[in-house]
Amino acid sequence: MGYKTDMKILYIMFDQLRFDYLSCAGHPTMHTPNIDRIAAKGVRFTNAYTQSPVCGAARMSAYTGRYVSSHGAQWNGYPLRVGEVTLGDHLRDAGVGCWLIGKTHMKADAAGMARLGLAPDSVIGARQAECGFDVWCRDDGLWAEGPDGRYDQKRSPYNEYLKSKGYGGNNPWADFANAATDGDDVASGWFMKNANQPANIDEPDSETPWLTTEAIKFMEATDGPYCVHISYIKPHWPYIVPAPYHDMYGPGDILPPVRDPSELDDPHPVYAAFTQGRVGQTFSKDHVRDTVIPAYMGLIKQCDDQMGRLLDYLDQSGQADDTMIILTSDHGDYLGDHWMGEKDLFHAPSVKVPLIIYDPRTSADATRGTTCDALVEAIDVTATIIDASGQTVPHHVVEGRSLMDYVEGRTPKAPRDYVISEYDYSSHPVGARLGLAPKDARLFMVATQDWKLVHCEGGLPPMLYDLRNDPDELRDLGRDPAYADVRAQMYEHLHAWGLRMSQRVTLSDDDIAAKQAGRKTGVMIGVFEEDDVPADETVCYRVKTPPRS
Amino acid sequence: MGYKTDMKILYIMFDQLRFDYLSCAGHPTMHTPNIDRIAAKGVRFTNAYTQSPVCGAARMSAYTGRYVSSHGAQWNGYPLRVGEVTLGDHLRDAGVGCWLIGKTHMKADAAGMARLGLAPDSVIGARQAECGFDVWCRDDGLWAEGPDGRYDQKRSPYNEYLKSKGYGGNNPWADFANAATDGDDVASGWFMKNANQPANIDEPDSETPWLTTEAIKFMEATDGPYCVHISYIKPHWPYIVPAPYHDMYGPGDILPPVRDPSELDDPHPVYAAFTQGRVGQTFSKDHVRDTVIPAYMGLIKQCDDQMGRLLDYLDQSGQADDTMIILTSDHGDYLGDHWMGEKDLFHAPSVKVPLIIYDPRTSADATRGTTCDALVEAIDVTATIIDASGQTVPHHVVEGRSLMDYVEGRTPKAPRDYVISEYDYSSHPVGARLGLAPKDARLFMVATQDWKLVHCEGGLPPMLYDLRNDPDELRDLGRDPAYADVRAQMYEHLHAWGLRMSQRVTLSDDDIAAKQAGRKTGVMIGVFEEDDVPADETVCYRVKTPPRS
Repeated sequence: MGYKTDMKILYIMFDQLRFDYLSCAGHPTMHTPNIDRIAAKGVRFTNAYTQSPVCGAARMSAYTGRYVSSHGAQWNGYPLRVGEVTLGDHLRDAGVGCWLIGKTHMKADAAGMARLGLAPDSVIGARQAECGFDVWCRDDGLWAEGPDGRYDQKRSPYNEYLKSKGYGGNNPWADFANAATDGDDVASGWFMKNANQPANIDEPDSETPWLTTEAIKFMEATDGPYCVHISYIKPHWPYIVPAPYHDMYGPGDILPPVRDPSELDDPHPVYAAFTQGRVGQTFSKDHVRDTVIPAYMGLIKQCDDQMGRLLDYLDQSGQADDTMIILTSDHGDYLGDHWMGEKDLFHAPSVKVPLIIYDPRTSADATRGTTCDALVEAIDVTATIIDASGQTVPHHVVEGRSLMDYVEGRTPKAPRDYVISEYDYSSHPVGARLGLAPKDARLFMVATQDWKLVHCEGGLPPMLYDLRNDPDELRDLGRDPAYADVRAQMYEHLHAWGLRMSQRVTLSDDDIAAKQAGRKTGVMIGVFEEDDVPADETVCYRVKTPPRS
Repeated sequence: MGYKTDMKILYIMFDQLRFDYLSCAGHPTMHTPNIDRIAAKGVRFTNAYTQSPVCGAARMSAYTGRYVSSHGAQWNGYPLRVGEVTLGDHLRDAGVGCWLIGKTHMKADAAGMARLGLAPDSVIGARQAECGFDVWCRDDGLWAEGPDGRYDQKRSPYNEYLKSKGYGGNNPWADFANAATDGDDVASGWFMKNANQPANIDEPDSETPWLTTEAIKFMEATDGPYCVHISYIKPHWPYIVPAPYHDMYGPGDILPPVRDPSELDDPHPVYAAFTQGRVGQTFSKDHVRDTVIPAYMGLIKQCDDQMGRLLDYLDQSGQADDTMIILTSDHGDYLGDHWMGEKDLFHAPSVKVPLIIYDPRTSADATRGTTCDALVEAIDVTATIIDASGQTVPHHVVEGRSLMDYVEGRTPKAPRDYVISEYDYSSHPVGARLGLAPKDARLFMVATQDWKLVHCEGGLPPMLYDLRNDPDELRDLGRDPAYADVRAQMYEHLHAWGLRMSQRVTLSDDDIAAKQAGRKTGVMIGVFEEDDVPADETVCYRVKTPPRS
């Protein structure tokens, strides 16, 4: 297919970046000229869905190419089972390196590794513990601390960097990078009232430039072929950004919330529980949005400037023409839309992700600067990277479908009729508040171009949205008798998906074709007479009786 | 629960033993007084279903306690993915040994083991390669040979035994144990016309007595607590048995076939393809049944006599009172019923299995000699063994449900409303004959006490049987418009099952409850003011700004 075997792939992921907070996606005040530069050279997918609106589960799907229910790491901190095959395994099988710079939110299956005797400090063990990546630099970027200790026990290269630059204390991530000052005191970014103040850090020392520097260092030091996952922590909360980004945007730049009081009339119990929680209540307040969203936009602006720095480096180092760029996010952020904050549910601001693919090869010239509104999933990116590396996607393991047909302007061999996203909220306070057993605190979204259905386990009713006539998803038709037929159609998709083959991971379709061809090994089933089968198959059974001593 | 920690469990499995070929199950001419002795001391389950009507998939479910679609080893020779947790892992975690004597039909995931650097000759590697068992003696009992070599490349302890006893040639399993003689020539048991002749072997040297001897040797040499899987090869084909069993039964002892010409009128395409194959055609001939079934019955009679030998050993060695006995099979055998041979589909003779559980403890006294017609599955036996060993069944991994409530005469906490069995025929000639892609050559059976539905992937119609009014399953109602509502009800069960949580194997429900309780680690989501959360949670964020050098 004319793929350069020395190609480099930058698999860039931002965290909690909404699909619609880019100027190329039509945001009127959020200017992202550098991300737009990538879109101008590639294809921007306008209907890309995450596999789960939560970091951990979404990322385990992105790194395995498998649905959340298939890999089982269904929420943050749920270990990915040992032996689950990752993007890194697939790429290394083809001699392509697979590197990590930044966040994965992956928790290793320590019990499973111990059961298999895998030492975390061995190469194999380290890859198991790092979701299949070779680690240039891992920093999950959540160095929270409370009375019960740290949220994340791992070492933070970023905190070590800050200390080396003279930032004091044990946790400069918290005290400087994610805090302003109030006189002599820390004004923590964890308190969103501080979001409109500048982070108390030199801008080049903040997280996004630091990670970009690491990425450039990696590219300077490493020859292809490789895929490097450049995984930024921002614009994920804490929502605070250093000058000059902290006041680039103000309340006048933010869009009105997409919400309607009628959404809170007779709401679905799961939706109601989320809106009634602290996050939903807080983000439903205008002064919170006026304070937080400008900081969120500033963080995105900083991300965009760092994309510019990365693109300039590629141009200057002559790598722009053999470096593929995939830019996406793990999920979105409600920011007060639908009376919600954070993510957790399946309205567009949460479940849709930005996705831009720039392929430098001439085979992609036909689609440069175009958009594609086909239904695609995060796991399709995994398949795309494998395909773009010149390999056959192992569909007995990888459930994603390569997007290269779209990138190269062909009619896709396997377009998606619907997309799936899942959410396990058994560990979320809402699961407990609704008194649901863990297995019942699960949601499944199935969406077509026209409809979005959310199935709820635990005997709860579904949610349904008419995406054509109610694009803002303000009317839940899940319990409206008039839409029983639509729900039945959507359930047909979900039920077919539920019976998919997801675990036959040790044998490919080609292996099975070979089995069908069959080896003649003398197993005779239903054979009454010798003559019922070709003589050559029974030679071993038509012999003299051996001697017996 | 008063469980003896030194208890021994004999997990006895016959291969291809029909549920109804036991005198305790009502067979009029097949006398099995020794198996009946076990039934008289325990509970006989009359509605026990295999997870798949094929050896390999059924056994991988039995040894993991998981559905075929959950473990993914969907047919014979499909490797069980490395790291899949087995009965042996669960028992050893509780200090209970788990041993194998005989057949597993397990194929190791060599590629997965290599990826994880597991050496097959290490203890961990060996358990991975042997489906979690410690091996006293493994012999899968299919030493077929053809122009392309052996069906099974492994070492055969049984062949080595025969050679040590003076049986000549390279494969005395084929030339003596599974063959008669015709003058100087081998009259192979692979040719069913020879089924009514005596195998050319001293009866004590044949497979079933040999394996029983190994089991007794194991019990003499091993202290509890343990579970030992005594896994017989017979009465599985080749259908041939030594004297005196070869002529204990004749055509007059066999039951008429359960079949009706109407089954072949407008048959379901999958059913049609199986009946039209060699096996179905051959077993539909009366002279084949008259020749083969008496041998099958003779093999069962020999199995029953060996059960007597085992029971006598337990009595004489004083172990009968602290040894639990579970007796079952991996699937049945059509033997010409429904114009079929072998297994493959879901009529009762194929999908139902015998299941007898004898628990010596007084806690089971109330149920001795009773039958239980509750719907149960093969994976429930796995859960029962774990429960009987005094452990909590880890339901985030094991999908089976313990039968101890039934054994101890309690109303079960979690009775099954329906049972599931699956069949992947993508490697079977029928899959190729129907031109189905591997993922489409899959069948799912869902059965209640009243109905049995078989869903077929690949756009094929379902099959449906009315078990109350058509207990012999002679009328397929799968395409009858009059039964659309019944099919819809049965599909509800299947679709709910399809969305089950089967892969969250690294976290238990208790782990999730602990997560809900939560640790205070300073992650503040949706907090605008310090006062929005208890002060103790934000101590780390209400500090003086550290010095900066």
